[in-house]
Amino acid sequence: MRARDLGIVIGQLAQGTRNAITDVAGVRVGHATLIVGEGPLVAGRGPVRTGVTVIMPHDGDPWRDAVYAGSHRLNGNGELTGLEWIRESGMLTSPIALTNTHSVGVVRDAIIAAEIRDRGATSDAYWALPVVGETYDGRLNDINGFHVRPEHVFAALADARTGAVAEGNVGGGTGMICHEFKGGIGTASRVLGQAEGGFSVGVLVQANYGRRDRLSIDGVPVGREIPISEVPSAWDPPRTPGAGSIIGIVATDAPLLPHQCERLAQRAALGVARVGGAGENSSGDLFLAFATGNRPMPAAHVAGPQPLTRDIRTLVDSHITPLFWAVIEATEEAILNAMLAAETMVGRDGNTAHALPPDRLREVMARYRPPP
Amino acid sequence: MRARDLGIVIGQLAQGTRNAITDVAGVRVGHATLIVGEGPLVAGRGPVRTGVTVIMPHDGDPWRDAVYAGSHRLNGNGELTGLEWIRESGMLTSPIALTNTHSVGVVRDAIIAAEIRDRGATSDAYWALPVVGETYDGRLNDINGFHVRPEHVFAALADARTGAVAEGNVGGGTGMICHEFKGGIGTASRVLGQAEGGFSVGVLVQANYGRRDRLSIDGVPVGREIPISEVPSAWDPPRTPGAGSIIGIVATDAPLLPHQCERLAQRAALGVARVGGAGENSSGDLFLAFATGNRPMPAAHVAGPQPLTRDIRTLVDSHITPLFWAVIEATEEAILNAMLAAETMVGRDGNTAHALPPDRLREVMARYRPPP
Amino acid sequence: MRARDLGIVIGQLAQGTRNAITDVAGVRVGHATLIVGEGPLVAGRGPVRTGVTVIMPHDGDPWRDAVYAGSHRLNGNGELTGLEWIRESGMLTSPIALTNTHSVGVVRDAIIAAEIRDRGATSDAYWALPVVGETYDGRLNDINGFHVRPEHVFAALADARTGAVAEGNVGGGTGMICHEFKGGIGTASRVLGQAEGGFSVGVLVQANYGRRDRLSIDGVPVGREIPISEVPSAWDPPRTPGAGSIIGIVATDAPLLPHQCERLAQRAALGVARVGGAGENSSGDLFLAFATGNRPMPAAHVAGPQPLTRDIRTLVDSHITPLFWAVIEATEEAILNAMLAAETMVGRDGNTAHALPPDRLREVMARYRPPP
Amino acid sequence: MRARDLGIVIGQLAQGTRNAITDVAGVRVGHATLIVGEGPLVAGRGPVRTGVTVIMPHDGDPWRDAVYAGSHRLNGNGELTGLEWIRESGMLTSPIALTNTHSVGVVRDAIIAAEIRDRGATSDAYWALPVVGETYDGRLNDINGFHVRPEHVFAALADARTGAVAEGNVGGGTGMICHEFKGGIGTASRVLGQAEGGFSVGVLVQANYGRRDRLSIDGVPVGREIPISEVPSAWDPPRTPGAGSIIGIVATDAPLLPHQCERLAQRAALGVARVGGAGENSSGDLFLAFATGNRPMPAAHVAGPQPLTRDIRTLVDSHITPLFWAVIEATEEAILNAMLAAETMVGRDGNTAHALPPDRLREVMARYRPPP
Repeated sequence: MRARDLGIVIGQLAQGTRNAITDVAGVRVGHATLIVGEGPLVAGRGPVRTGVTVIMPHDGDPWRDAVYAGSHRLNGNGELTGLEWIRESGMLTSPIALTNTHSVGVVRDAIIAAEIRDRGATSDAYWALPVVGETYDGRLNDINGFHVRPEHVFAALADARTGAVAEGNVGGGTGMICHEFKGGIGTASRVLGQAEGGFSVGVLVQANYGRRDRLSIDGVPVGREIPISEVPSAWDPPRTPGAGSIIGIVATDAPLLPHQCERLAQRAALGVARVGGAGENSSGDLFLAFATGNRPMPAAHVAGPQPLTRDIRTLVDSHITPLFWAVIEATEEAILNAMLAAETMVGRDGNTAHALPPDRLREVMARYRPPP
Repeated sequence: MRARDLGIVIGQLAQGTRNAITDVAGVRVGHATLIVGEGPLVAGRGPVRTGVTVIMPHDGDPWRDAVYAGSHRLNGNGELTGLEWIRESGMLTSPIALTNTHSVGVVRDAIIAAEIRDRGATSDAYWALPVVGETYDGRLNDINGFHVRPEHVFAALADARTGAVAEGNVGGGTGMICHEFKGGIGTASRVLGQAEGGFSVGVLVQANYGRRDRLSIDGVPVGREIPISEVPSAWDPPRTPGAGSIIGIVATDAPLLPHQCERLAQRAALGVARVGGAGENSSGDLFLAFATGNRPMPAAHVAGPQPLTRDIRTLVDSHITPLFWAVIEATEEAILNAMLAAETMVGRDGNTAHALPPDRLREVMARYRPPP
Repeated sequence: MRARDLGIVIGQLAQGTRNAITDVAGVRVGHATLIVGEGPLVAGRGPVRTGVTVIMPHDGDPWRDAVYAGSHRLNGNGELTGLEWIRESGMLTSPIALTNTHSVGVVRDAIIAAEIRDRGATSDAYWALPVVGETYDGRLNDINGFHVRPEHVFAALADARTGAVAEGNVGGGTGMICHEFKGGIGTASRVLGQAEGGFSVGVLVQANYGRRDRLSIDGVPVGREIPISEVPSAWDPPRTPGAGSIIGIVATDAPLLPHQCERLAQRAALGVARVGGAGENSSGDLFLAFATGNRPMPAAHVAGPQPLTRDIRTLVDSHITPLFWAVIEATEEAILNAMLAAETMVGRDGNTAHALPPDRLREVMARYRPPP
Repeated sequence: MRARDLGIVIGQLAQGTRNAITDVAGVRVGHATLIVGEGPLVAGRGPVRTGVTVIMPHDGDPWRDAVYAGSHRLNGNGELTGLEWIRESGMLTSPIALTNTHSVGVVRDAIIAAEIRDRGATSDAYWALPVVGETYDGRLNDINGFHVRPEHVFAALADARTGAVAEGNVGGGTGMICHEFKGGIGTASRVLGQAEGGFSVGVLVQANYGRRDRLSIDGVPVGREIPISEVPSAWDPPRTPGAGSIIGIVATDAPLLPHQCERLAQRAALGVARVGGAGENSSGDLFLAFATGNRPMPAAHVAGPQPLTRDIRTLVDSHITPLFWAVIEATEEAILNAMLAAETMVGRDGNTAHALPPDRLREVMARYRPPP
């Protein structure tokens, strides 16, 4: 179930073939999903509701074939490793992985280990600064049990593929909560017209943020129409809702420079705002945008001679605004897709995150549509 | 005419007494409005459609009684002088003024001159780094005629007052265009409940940005419902619409530290996003937030001994989220107030910016409201 | 008198032909110097010790032929207008001007006026966001007299030329003080070897910062060796010395992208550190680096169709470190050149800024040189 | 062996009791050092030359008793996790750990695990975003063997103590190289006079950066005087030297706000510049400053009610400059202490990092000291 299956179309731009981040040629996504056990929380034993999602920025080797990238922080109560080098060099030089808050470390080191495993002692990569983000799944998952292991990271890497992207309760999004409904992984894309360059923009989110009463879909106050008295919140009353986070990854095949990627990354925050996010205090709302239009760029950590200069292209700024709109639209739709794909989940201690009910959503949307 | 006169209420929080930035105690606003001549543009002669708006951050001397402040850039195609010192010191140490793009300089120096005029040779202020922002009014105004003079700045300073704030075609907002309707100065406020500290938040915008077809009011696609075929755009077709900018000033009496002010400033961008702004390439979307809850702070440019430390307060971060919502709501409503207060204006060369027609807005809003 | 005339060579890289920012092909520098009157300060009458320095980034039209640029703030007690657009677009789209703190406004608007004067009603530039920096000359100059006028800006623009650069008490540097000696404008350059690309790097500073006892030249504690008991400070005892600022402009012909320019800009701060600067609280230490290796880039404020993309080049990062060294060395030497070129100046109220005495400097340097 | 044992005193401010970061009351440092095996590299087996260093910001519980903090990036080819939350909240809410580049993940998660182990199921901490930095020790260490294990992190935490700090080849500094000599952990401190508040400033570095020929100690070109022809470089000729990094942690008991901590953090970069660092392209030069003068601050991740506001203090900015000088001086001396404490180390494949020979250093320094 996706937004368009309900007739909900966000914005005015055309979607890509799959309406997914993989519409940007070469981008691959893989998941490893861990759902084990039920009942009361026993730290270290479960229940487990977590996982790892991997985004490969293109069809080559991300360690040796860097792409320009930039980031934006809407609210920083979160982690996205590797940002200092992205800010300095303007380049993404690793896969991207998303997981739960307390497993960032194991995923980070395992991504390096996978590279070493593949290249062995002859590797020409001196060091690695991988990009790993997180949101908090401790409401449903035994987050302090550290259930994510290196083998799950290897599995997500092995699973990375072009084509359709699994959404909802998968990978890093497995145990997530969004606007007090079940959240998770979602994606969407836009394609500009030929006059605007024909570029593709894809967004993938791990959506785990937001209050019910602020949820707005295509301008309709869905959260007020489906209140927690109708579909209960995934959070207990004493716990401040809106305590989660959202990580957004933006991909495009436009030939953007690093500072242009930063501009796209900030527009993902505008998409979140339109759905009702405010970058709440306990939220880690971090966005990373990368552009594949200037591959390959040499990476600094790779040994051996490198050319003095590289011929590249840049999108002329007066043509960048349609890309901003594309990011805003795709982010809004990706969040909605995450919620619609996610099914109701019972987690640790019986905590339950209810799915956004599609029939009710359809009803509510219809009520706010003007009569013809 | 304001949003609430049409029954449009943005968000869920209570408004302040006047629903204006002046609901933050001590904040004062003054305008000098220049509307002279009509007909074809003769550079240096007019027609003139411009002005200066001044915001005094409190009821004291802003040069000697500093307040904490922070800023955010959504898109930087604009100017807001004084930001480097605000970023470094976390303090606003001057009045704030808004004008047109090509008059930032004269306004800046005149603000210093006014201080010197008042204090004379005995002034204890070594230097001044005033805060002056701008948006572009060259579609209606003879912007290259440099019609703003120091005396207009002095007049705006003299006009600064608490209480009701004139909106629309006044001060710096005189010649502005917003979502291809007439724009200008607008303001709104929110007051938190006592349990959340009872703080006030006020926003004032100089609104000069946006495309018609992206205009959204309280989630309703007003811009698509009142297209330029019905109410013409203020811009010619070959000129990219959405070419303007928005400056937003956020005030609060909460005891925020500089980095907390920065967080509020970014939330103003989320309010703009909800109305349909995207930080378009040609837009200078800059936001400044200041907090009066820790006055007075000594300013670095003032001679004489200063205490080693100052006892201050900070809002504990777990209580900051309602302030974020307040900023988002007040920004959205301030933009709408700017458009509703602004009347149709004919400027240079007969260029016309049409007002957002309130009756049509009421009709459109009603169509998107669900039946009871 | 320049550093090399005294046998002082900073660092290990080769200097350019003129050891000036104009060694970067096309860069032009012009000054307007205002030295009028003497005796007691009468605000508005003088004495006047100020001026304007203009840097044109290349031999073309800076408004229509943009270059990539980036900035760095070591300490923000200063102004450098236009930075928001440079941060956003990565481009310098105007001349650069330097003046005193209270004349930034008049210089900014006059730079726009000069463009309009030259282009007239047919100008294709919608708006302008010029780059104007400042340091404080109120110790010697009647800074509150606002003696800089538009005609002085026009004169500095008209004076802009390639070739040798006047240093010391000229242009914006006229009334400046550095490490409690007379300061002003200084410049230096470095040229990389062919294996490193053969790029030129030039630095121009307006040097007005620093305490005497922290002055270090090529590692030698010159300030402690020539204390204020020997050569009096330009400041009165009760006034905190080190109250000034330094603005540094870095130019290179390397094909750098905006984020690479930012990296160069920060290295200018490292050069300041080596001379003894600490970014003191009252200092506005702002640096701007631009790179001419990718001209011309279209500027956003220019009307008319622009290409979708531009073919450009980027220096591969693994070759950027020599440029860092070049910036550090040239900044250090530019500061020293500013002090050596500046002659003792008597300003308002008889306040005197003494020149760094070259013979004493030579002596001190010799004492710290090891015997052969 | 420390700098002062050789009569080398950096700067003019007084040192603290131990001339260490632990002179800031309550700051504790612990190390776990791994030195195992010798001979050729066999990935996963060794030789091992690495470790973990932990800095506890005060004598309380860093998770529940937050301190204000700020950071600075001189060059971002490195990792320092947790920075997004420090930038957003202005608070350090965890221990700080330093290790090698490829062990950041295991150290990060182990710091969380230690907290959970100590607090168990009753922990009131929802989530954790620990601060873990790194530099690259792969020249001496089997960095791809991932030899750092959680138990080493627990050991470093258990080792954390006030008082003297072990320097050189210990903890995270075990396998590090600095200016092509042996590097490692170093520390120093300064204490301001009572008129300046009597505050303490301590710096701890993990020093692993720099070229030989750029090494400068107290202004003396030591690296040119002790070239690699005399004491061989730790790097092979084809490998670009200066490929390392430096992490600097600044502590003070002054009551600084977050933005003031950021200012201190940048001054650590100025100290590095004075020793000869340039933030080379392959360097991860990241600095974190924290201030204990406003403890305790509530942390956002801790459950339960929190007060609306907190009474705190701030240092008035006009008194901050001496703290800047203290950071610059202590950083310079901490780097030197790291090199002097470190002993020659033979690592993997017989790669050898030679210690800076103290007798030769003494000799060189004497030659550049002027005759009395």
